[in-house]
Amino acid sequence: MDRQQLRVDGKRLRGALEEMATIGATPNGGVYRLTLSDQDRRARDLFVRWLKELDLEVVVDEMGNIFGQWPGQDNALPPVLTGSHVDSQPKGGRFDGILGVMGALEALRTLRDHKVTTRRPIWIVDWTNEEGSRFAPAMVSSGVWAGALQLDWAYGRTDINGKKQGDELLRIGYRGSAPCRKVPLHCYYEYHIEQGPLLERERKLIGAPKGILCLHWYDVHLEGEANQVGPTPMEGRHDALCAAAEMILKVNELPARMAGNMVATVGEIQNGPNSRNIIPDQVHFTVDIRSWDDDHALKAWELLKQDFAKIAERRGCPIRIEETWRVKHSPFAERLVERVLSTAQELGYPAMRMVSGAGHDASYMNQCTDTAMIFVPSINGRSHVECENTTWEDCEAGANVLLHCLLKSADE
Amino acid sequence: MDRQQLRVDGKRLRGALEEMATIGATPNGGVYRLTLSDQDRRARDLFVRWLKELDLEVVVDEMGNIFGQWPGQDNALPPVLTGSHVDSQPKGGRFDGILGVMGALEALRTLRDHKVTTRRPIWIVDWTNEEGSRFAPAMVSSGVWAGALQLDWAYGRTDINGKKQGDELLRIGYRGSAPCRKVPLHCYYEYHIEQGPLLERERKLIGAPKGILCLHWYDVHLEGEANQVGPTPMEGRHDALCAAAEMILKVNELPARMAGNMVATVGEIQNGPNSRNIIPDQVHFTVDIRSWDDDHALKAWELLKQDFAKIAERRGCPIRIEETWRVKHSPFAERLVERVLSTAQELGYPAMRMVSGAGHDASYMNQCTDTAMIFVPSINGRSHVECENTTWEDCEAGANVLLHCLLKSADE
Repeated sequence: MDRQQLRVDGKRLRGALEEMATIGATPNGGVYRLTLSDQDRRARDLFVRWLKELDLEVVVDEMGNIFGQWPGQDNALPPVLTGSHVDSQPKGGRFDGILGVMGALEALRTLRDHKVTTRRPIWIVDWTNEEGSRFAPAMVSSGVWAGALQLDWAYGRTDINGKKQGDELLRIGYRGSAPCRKVPLHCYYEYHIEQGPLLERERKLIGAPKGILCLHWYDVHLEGEANQVGPTPMEGRHDALCAAAEMILKVNELPARMAGNMVATVGEIQNGPNSRNIIPDQVHFTVDIRSWDDDHALKAWELLKQDFAKIAERRGCPIRIEETWRVKHSPFAERLVERVLSTAQELGYPAMRMVSGAGHDASYMNQCTDTAMIFVPSINGRSHVECENTTWEDCEAGANVLLHCLLKSADE
Repeated sequence: MDRQQLRVDGKRLRGALEEMATIGATPNGGVYRLTLSDQDRRARDLFVRWLKELDLEVVVDEMGNIFGQWPGQDNALPPVLTGSHVDSQPKGGRFDGILGVMGALEALRTLRDHKVTTRRPIWIVDWTNEEGSRFAPAMVSSGVWAGALQLDWAYGRTDINGKKQGDELLRIGYRGSAPCRKVPLHCYYEYHIEQGPLLERERKLIGAPKGILCLHWYDVHLEGEANQVGPTPMEGRHDALCAAAEMILKVNELPARMAGNMVATVGEIQNGPNSRNIIPDQVHFTVDIRSWDDDHALKAWELLKQDFAKIAERRGCPIRIEETWRVKHSPFAERLVERVLSTAQELGYPAMRMVSGAGHDASYMNQCTDTAMIFVPSINGRSHVECENTTWEDCEAGANVLLHCLLKSADE
């Protein structure tokens, strides 16, 4: 068979996704499959069973990352790696992560159906704890694999019940013996839902992110003066929540003020004493700024900080700011981004360049090898919610792009 | 001795306040004496002991209100009632409530010292659970006494541990047998700290509130659309926290827009999912509006509601509003307000008319009989905090005003 004509089996892919979606299924159509939970174990067991049915060699490393190794004609060559994660957010959706693992599995199943061999080996991976919602931080196991994070530190991370990540790996039987340490790779592909509305808005089927935005996190703490609201005149109040409200709007207006290329969000706020008849005197909120341009994001932050200082001064609410976390933007290998675009074109799928606003294991892989991602549309741009959705046709299309990208790279 | 020359013993009053302040004392100089706690019981026991040392008849009613009955020359006449409460906020101050009880006690001690008798009886009262911080609502026992609230309902109110108010009254031995039901009174005085900055700002020693502001409480619920912040462009977001921030500032600007005679506050906010990288989609906040003029407050609310609707519409965040609670303003008896002012003047204390922004047991008493309050300055306007403070001189001055108001009313 002409390799160009190879196509994945959309029905089989849908069947795999639907079977996975029964593990940790929520009443509203989502999944609750926190990393290293019994649900995660069941999803892993099923994944491993499917890998073995394909006669792949299964390797589990010290962080529980599962590798299914498809042999190449020359197994001395660095392999092409592809995959994503099977864990989910609490009340997450049925596509985030798992699509990239099942899409890769379907690509290999298609190669097996047609007895196709490739020059290089192809490995599928399920990265442990991409979400970070049970044990912070996110993407921890690709981070350890890439050498950016320490294994012992990762083992010691605890969930809200005080359970350690390392112990939970043991408990579910996925603390493997293979070293969690990078090996030479030829390249890495990650197939994922977009988690945003752009593909839908632009009526494109395939997104080829040129990389991942930078990510800057800040924590702002404001002090006010608590007083009974009734007897305290408006003049002379030091209301920390009013100061925060002004700042929240400044954050929201920041991207327009910076002429775009940026998103800025306040997602979290704590208010104290949080009593309806006491003037708030303790407010904490977070700021999340992302941009393709690290300097642009830093300039925006400098402007914002000046605004914050003025507001705090005018309202008489002392401010304390923590610069909590900064990750630089991560540009993917242009050669592979082009390959995703041209492969989509060859398959007749409208495709576009874009950026990834969310972090992915691909960020750490990009530190190890040439990396690219393949995005398919998220209906209404929704993700990390039970109603997260992608059409079966789009799931199939993305898997076809992945299949042909793998074929091209594995034959290099 | 000329009655005009009678003065309370400032040192004895200070001693009583200091001894009370040891019960539930906090490390930072406040008190933690929640209603019906062991601390409240100890404060009640001490109060009852002091009442008995004055040979007063002590009556405890079904809500645990403690009455100390000073006989008059004609005990068939309706008595003059005065008092406040011995319970405190969690980490409250050493003056709120207890000053009105100890001030009244000191006034009667002074009458006893000088063997003064009055035509009418004078009763001192400690109202159970004025604060409402352990069992909601506040001022419950003066409310039951006035017939505005039901006894059984009050008994059934629970604290956060599920304990019932009625059971806790029994536990501490203060569920009395006297009916908690109003009896004819000649008038009611309540001596209290101002809990605001006006007396200090105007350099006055005594405040005579012409009544208590109206109180309107609202609960606002906003819905947004939760999404990953990274991949979701600013355009098309439905950020419920941004909508709330705009509304909070509208509330804060409302009194200026209405040309004063009003305070308006957002004290409480809950944000969901409250995660730093998810756009907020569930926000609840409270609005507290107080004014001397009920219609003014209602007009302001109508304007605010229109603003809220516009903001909700523009941001695409559906809004739901509960009109939670409305209490009309409570004007005190002008004759008694004048008496507080003229008595202060006779005693040489600079005094001013004002309003009470906070609720007091005097609100319910005002439904039963002619009522007035006597305010003394709160240093820096602070209350319901451990650093709440009033000078001993000011405590003494207010008690002298109370003493002479009681004498005048009890001789009518």
